[in-house]
Amino acid sequence: MKISIIGAGKVATQLATALFKADNCISDVFSRTINSAEQLAKKVDAPFTDTISEITTGADVYLIAVSDSALENVIDQLKNQVGKSLVAHTAGSMSMDIFKSKVENYGVFYPLQTFSKTRSARFEEIPLCIEANNQLSFNVLNNLATTLSNDVREINSTQRKQIHLAAVFVCNFTNFMYHAGQELLDKQHISFDILRPLIQETADKVMQEMPENTQTGPAVRYDKNVIEKHLQMLSDNPQLQDIYQTLSKGIYQKHKKKE
Amino acid sequence: MKISIIGAGKVATQLATALFKADNCISDVFSRTINSAEQLAKKVDAPFTDTISEITTGADVYLIAVSDSALENVIDQLKNQVGKSLVAHTAGSMSMDIFKSKVENYGVFYPLQTFSKTRSARFEEIPLCIEANNQLSFNVLNNLATTLSNDVREINSTQRKQIHLAAVFVCNFTNFMYHAGQELLDKQHISFDILRPLIQETADKVMQEMPENTQTGPAVRYDKNVIEKHLQMLSDNPQLQDIYQTLSKGIYQKHKKKE
Repeated sequence: MKISIIGAGKVATQLATALFKADNCISDVFSRTINSAEQLAKKVDAPFTDTISEITTGADVYLIAVSDSALENVIDQLKNQVGKSLVAHTAGSMSMDIFKSKVENYGVFYPLQTFSKTRSARFEEIPLCIEANNQLSFNVLNNLATTLSNDVREINSTQRKQIHLAAVFVCNFTNFMYHAGQELLDKQHISFDILRPLIQETADKVMQEMPENTQTGPAVRYDKNVIEKHLQMLSDNPQLQDIYQTLSKGIYQKHKKKE
Repeated sequence: MKISIIGAGKVATQLATALFKADNCISDVFSRTINSAEQLAKKVDAPFTDTISEITTGADVYLIAVSDSALENVIDQLKNQVGKSLVAHTAGSMSMDIFKSKVENYGVFYPLQTFSKTRSARFEEIPLCIEANNQLSFNVLNNLATTLSNDVREINSTQRKQIHLAAVFVCNFTNFMYHAGQELLDKQHISFDILRPLIQETADKVMQEMPENTQTGPAVRYDKNVIEKHLQMLSDNPQLQDIYQTLSKGIYQKHKKKE
């Protein structure tokens, strides 16, 4: 398929690279920042531009991977060039309806993963959440998605927003817990690497089991003795102390209910 | 070495099994619950008892892996039988001084990992934090530890308590974030498995990098648009709403400082 890539950030870079490797043709790369456009374009053997009106017409799919705040503006500028081609965005929290009465064939192509510019993503395992405004468009996105991943799912906008919210918890907030661990160890001049096997095992456990069944630690039965010692150790760090208290109560309440 | 195992919970079970596999001799297993003692004893080819006064004398090491709240009481009952043998506990948050003026040779043997009864732990990669009240005892614990793990570290009680606190964040609180994700998906009848590749990658990222450099998500730059939408979606769940707000602010404050 001939795919035009709108955006050159982390998602655009990982998606374009993976699509290129899966034998699709990248017709061009657009980014407001010409250097970013060029950098990605080189990787996928494509022309590039920083001007939306110069994007090639006639691509099979226009994939928009820009920031949520830029999305509407990009669609408004792109809409007159795409004709009957399929246009899809890749954002977790944006409704498909953002395309309504602007383009004819549209959809969403949301890869549920955290991307970095340097680590290359293993797309085969990444859930691709797709939806479209008609069956034909859905089929096109579905075909495209199956060239990349073994886990393609039809997910509507309401579900997708909920998945995105859940992702904030299991990814962004989890990383913040890792950061808190790092901060606490720094204080005692202990290297963060001591925590890595524990972090790995905590994630590994929920690969087979459900997190409600793998909860451990002093908060589960609200072990006052340990919790109070910990709160005292955090007395010089009101932010982590507040988080410790909020999360410990949360864990306790969830598990009390279960008993 | 001849090792007496006091306790038959998750830590005792995993430790005893690993020590047995590493060609140590388990002299006996004690648990207040005779069934638990028997169950573990079978795995490590050892006698068992539910009476502390019946624990064999003359072991090289008495390893106490009981709950924090039971530890002092167990030491008081055990102290007259151990003679000059080494006694060590395995608790993250308990000081080594709990043994002081009760036994002659003592220390701590703390494996930094989350254990379950069913998953068998890969001890080679688990950091073993050890300390002792004299060099000879330290050497014994060090020899024992190196039969199990490639990562043995001398860690004093102050550092160990801080590591334990950090572990609560990266393990217990992280699992609670996974649980929140599960809860949010349940509401939309979406299977938890869609989050698993994301959870895995979030952990994998910090195996090479530091968490302060891998933070992503709407909170990093306090994207009001997304954050307010999310808070609204959580309006029927005041607990997760509160957690969302607390953690988003925490992330923003950390990254604002860095700029």
